[in-house]
Amino acid sequence: MEPKDAEPIESRSSPVCVNNPYLDQMKDDILYHFSLATATHDLPAMFGDVKFVCVGGSQRRMKSFIEYAAAELDMGDPESDYPDLCAGTDRYAMYKVGPVLSVSVWLEPGTVVITKQSVDPTFTPKFEQIVLGKLVVRNTDLDRSLAEELLQCSKELNQFKAVMGNTMCTMDFYEGQARMDGAFCSFTEKEKREYLKKAHDAGVCNIEMESIVFAAMCNLSGLQAAVVCVTLLDRLEGDQMSSSHEVLQDYAKRIQILVGYYIKKQLKAEAVQVHN
Amino acid sequence: MEPKDAEPIESRSSPVCVNNPYLDQMKDDILYHFSLATATHDLPAMFGDVKFVCVGGSQRRMKSFIEYAAAELDMGDPESDYPDLCAGTDRYAMYKVGPVLSVSVWLEPGTVVITKQSVDPTFTPKFEQIVLGKLVVRNTDLDRSLAEELLQCSKELNQFKAVMGNTMCTMDFYEGQARMDGAFCSFTEKEKREYLKKAHDAGVCNIEMESIVFAAMCNLSGLQAAVVCVTLLDRLEGDQMSSSHEVLQDYAKRIQILVGYYIKKQLKAEAVQVHN
Repeated sequence: MEPKDAEPIESRSSPVCVNNPYLDQMKDDILYHFSLATATHDLPAMFGDVKFVCVGGSQRRMKSFIEYAAAELDMGDPESDYPDLCAGTDRYAMYKVGPVLSVSVWLEPGTVVITKQSVDPTFTPKFEQIVLGKLVVRNTDLDRSLAEELLQCSKELNQFKAVMGNTMCTMDFYEGQARMDGAFCSFTEKEKREYLKKAHDAGVCNIEMESIVFAAMCNLSGLQAAVVCVTLLDRLEGDQMSSSHEVLQDYAKRIQILVGYYIKKQLKAEAVQVHN
Repeated sequence: MEPKDAEPIESRSSPVCVNNPYLDQMKDDILYHFSLATATHDLPAMFGDVKFVCVGGSQRRMKSFIEYAAAELDMGDPESDYPDLCAGTDRYAMYKVGPVLSVSVWLEPGTVVITKQSVDPTFTPKFEQIVLGKLVVRNTDLDRSLAEELLQCSKELNQFKAVMGNTMCTMDFYEGQARMDGAFCSFTEKEKREYLKKAHDAGVCNIEMESIVFAAMCNLSGLQAAVVCVTLLDRLEGDQMSSSHEVLQDYAKRIQILVGYYIKKQLKAEAVQVHN
């Protein structure tokens, strides 16, 4: 991994590609889901210095992460409260400290998995979208060097097991993830095991429900992106989330520790570059 | 509509169909997303009397609805606060008053549309799901008599315009809904208009992102279900949600008024039946 680690930072910070020629003609752009708009908010002033966007499952967890990041990076007052930057809506919550933006979405909790490829339920790295009624297939490649760096960080931390592998992204939590504990189940235990075995053979390390869209959108935007999850249970052992709240919190914390460590390392490396 | 309105209530309250033979073998069923479980919560005691489940977009809106329902139905103390029944998680919020359960998910705000059929972006009433890597196509029929009753209620209320029509359910808010104001746009204004015109010709009155899964799941469960939305803007006029917060709130309130009126009417009809 030496050549990748030694790669200069600039070469990886490609400009964001906003692939929509119609945006330039708009006088006001209302970001409805965030309750933000170009006419009412100075978005460059609010977000212009953001270098790291961390998207996670729950509002509480993303607030907890920004507090953790503030302490880790020695930024902000540990006693102060972080305001929700999209308080005008309860669809999302958004917190910021220095160059770190923490946005809520959702995530399955439990070994840390750094995603190599996000694959669909047929184990194919593609995201199918319907645009104007027609199928559009989009690439779900993630930034390999960023994933390698995160794996390297996990080795340096040496606090928990971390692996790199494929993440399978499904459309639903129950049947889509071969669970037998939902309201509907149209398959047998044997068929379930065969499917999970096939997933394993295709390099799938964990299953969740967001990574494929996230990967496709970041890819289209030219954004360097990584997906880091933590597995909760061995799906060949069961379907139910029966771990205690404390165990789940400890698992979720691992992602914060890894991502916090990576951000700190990057900022240090940039500071050294500026200094030189 | 007379014959449908005169239909006795019993014939419509078919038993819920939980189509999973494996559930009976489970000692404890953990409803992870709600932070509820059969071992820790007496679910029949908590939810046994529920007759109306109202699922909506935002936590605040669903709390506001339970307060509205409590006042409308003369149930509960108007001064009291309604606890969130899934306070152990922030994925969902759930409030209950008498037989009414109000659960948060998400919804687009704006004329009240009572859904006849929920259709996909090719205007077909089907929900495609991947189970064990194979395509499963599910029926998205909604209960027609319930939709007719809701339309009748809107006429009795006579407070706002309400129509019955098809609801198109998409996978994303921007390109999937032929919007040109997202980060990506791969089509022209002309192509967009042609697509929206085709949708209109197929009976589509509004566009949102949940109804097709909701319809398919209720259908599979044998649950009588309806979808009621309120349109925010004429998509041939624009893409952006530029109405004021007050206007949006007034629109959202229309759904509460209609659904509250329906529930009240049903409970009165049942009371008359019990009395006779």
